Formats: sequence, structure tokens, C-alpha cells
Amino acid sequence: MIRTKRSIAVSKTRQHLEPGPIVLISSAWKGKTNIMTLGWHGMIAYEQVITYIWDANHSFEMTRQSGECVINVPTVDMLDTVVAIGNCHGKRIDKFTKFDLTAAEAAEVNVPLIAECYASFECQLSDDSLIEERGLFIWDVVKAHVAPTPKNPRTIHYRGGGHFMIAGKAVDMRRKFKRGNL
Amino acid sequence: MIRTKRSIAVSKTRQHLEPGPIVLISSAWKGKTNIMTLGWHGMIAYEQVITYIWDANHSFEMTRQSGECVINVPTVDMLDTVVAIGNCHGKRIDKFTKFDLTAAEAAEVNVPLIAECYASFECQLSDDSLIEERGLFIWDVVKAHVAPTPKNPRTIHYRGGGHFMIAGKAVDMRRKFKRGNL
Repeated sequence: MIRTKRSIAVSKTRQHLEPGPIVLISSAWKGKTNIMTLGWHGMIAYEQVITYIWDANHSFEMTRQSGECVINVPTVDMLDTVVAIGNCHGKRIDKFTKFDLTAAEAAEVNVPLIAECYASFECQLSDDSLIEERGLFIWDVVKAHVAPTPKNPRTIHYRGGGHFMIAGKAVDMRRKFKRGNL
Repeated sequence: MIRTKRSIAVSKTRQHLEPGPIVLISSAWKGKTNIMTLGWHGMIAYEQVITYIWDANHSFEMTRQSGECVINVPTVDMLDTVVAIGNCHGKRIDKFTKFDLTAAEAAEVNVPLIAECYASFECQLSDDSLIEERGLFIWDVVKAHVAPTPKNPRTIHYRGGGHFMIAGKAVDMRRKFKRGNL
């Protein structure tokens, strides 16, 4: 199902990535596109994300060469697709076609968003100095797209070994925070 | 409630951190201890974790100077405590005492585990070269302790702005994985 997304401030990226969901990284290079599943990411600033990408992944060279990617956040309705994407290699197939995913045009990068994901973050490589030695890519989030509903997206979280956790209930603790810490 | 934990292989750390829970970082330096809440972390190898720690946090200097920390994973029964820890500054108070948390002895580091958390990962600083410029600490996990139950811990995930997501149901997708990818 295609999710109609709206542009939000890139500084709100944490609302969607800090909870730690599995993401789908889309990339494009020399006329080809690819998608990989990724759980090894973290926020390192309000508008910056770090990812570990193994150099055996087809996406490693594609993102390194282009200096761009889109971080897309899938929900539980896409669980079979998420697993299947992680189980095949992008060198041999076009994953958008194989998995019947819709490539949507990005605003700031030459990489397609995945229209079926509820959130997509366009990223440009900020620092490549940790790629060679550690496989770490530091990304600036340059544009953020999020579907306004549901408010409590049922994101997918990976525990390794084929086991997943699905996002559960939302709890509002605002009353317990100091105002300046919100 | 104190959780009785068992030692597990450090290579299984991802099972507990990759889903992206809020963690409590315990630290110790010059006879004092501290605890901070942290959501900005990521796996970067099977036995390595990266954390962003703001240099205004009391824990920044304590972990940098000692080169050690423990990453503890709380569950939803500790939600009030997690929020309260994030809302006070360790320079002025002893957080173990203030929040009635139990310091348990670690095996490999001179930092206490938080006995009430269901999982605790003893860490030694692996690389300090990104601390000064970026606030990024690269940690080797040197010992892992996890309570055998529950199998599906109700971890706490932060969405910013005082909003949390609590870990929901577990889904076993092993049958959909290629054997070598598990």
C-alpha cells in the first residue's frame, strides 16, 4: 500500500529512527537502484544518522560512490518483504521490481523513496572517513517525509536469529518531563 | 525488582540492543557513580556499539576518563525511573541512591551493573578518536548479562517529545530466512 507522506522538519527525524526500527536503505548509482534491510543505525545528532554497512553488501559501493541514500521505515504489513529483501543480493536483481515496490521521486537526492514505507529520510554523505576502516557512513538528513497516520506506526525491530519485535503501545510521559528537556 | 541475570556470549549483544531500546548507561570515576538515559546508540559490529553522548552530560567526562561503562536495558516497569533519570543531573546527586537502584558488581569493568535491568553489557572504550569532535564513543562489549525470562522483554523506545513506544509482540520468521543468513 502506498503511503502518502508529508514533508516534516529534518530535526524531527529522531521521532522515527531513535526507536530503533529495521529500515530499508534505497540507493542508486549508474542507472541502477538497490534496496537493503538494515538494523545497525543510530542517531548521532538531530539531523545526522550513522549506519554500519558491511562491505559485502551490494549497497556498500552504491552508497559510497553516489554519496546518497534514502532511509525508509517499513511497518509490520511489509514484514515478509523486509525479510525477503534481506535474503537476496542486489547485484543480480532489481529489488523494486522483484518485490513490487514503488519508486517515488526524492526532492534533494537522486535516489528513489520507497512509497510503501510510512517514513523516508533523504540523506547525503556527510563524512566518508570511517567507511574504509569501519564500514561506518555518517549521513546528513536533508529532507524528511512522514505519513501523518497512523500516529503509532507498528514498526519492525530485529532481534537477530530470525526473531522480530513489533512496536507496541504508545505512552505519553510529557507530564513527567522538565519543560526544557522535551 | 532485581533481575537475576546469566552470562551470555557477547556476540549475542545485538539481540538486545539492535531493537533500539532506551538504555541506562552506568559509569564510575574517582569513587563516584552515575547513570544516564540514552537512545542514541547503534550496533557497529557483533561485539561493538557506538554511542553519542553530549558533552554537557555528566557521564561524558566520567566515561571518557575511565574508558568504561555498562549499557543496561530497562523494561516498562522502570519507565518512571527512566524518565526521572533523564531529568536530573548527575553532578549533584547519586542516582543509584536517589532512584533506589541496586549496584551489582561487574566482572570485567569497575562500573556497577544496574541489577533491576533485565540486561547489562560491560563495555570498554575501543576507540576514543571520535569523542572530541563528534561525541561518539566506540565500545567493545566485554561481558554480557541477560535475565533468561521474559523471552519477550517489554523494552522502552523513545520517540522524542516525551512520547515512548513499548515493545510489542514477538514474531518468529526463521522459516523465511536462508539458513546462512540467520
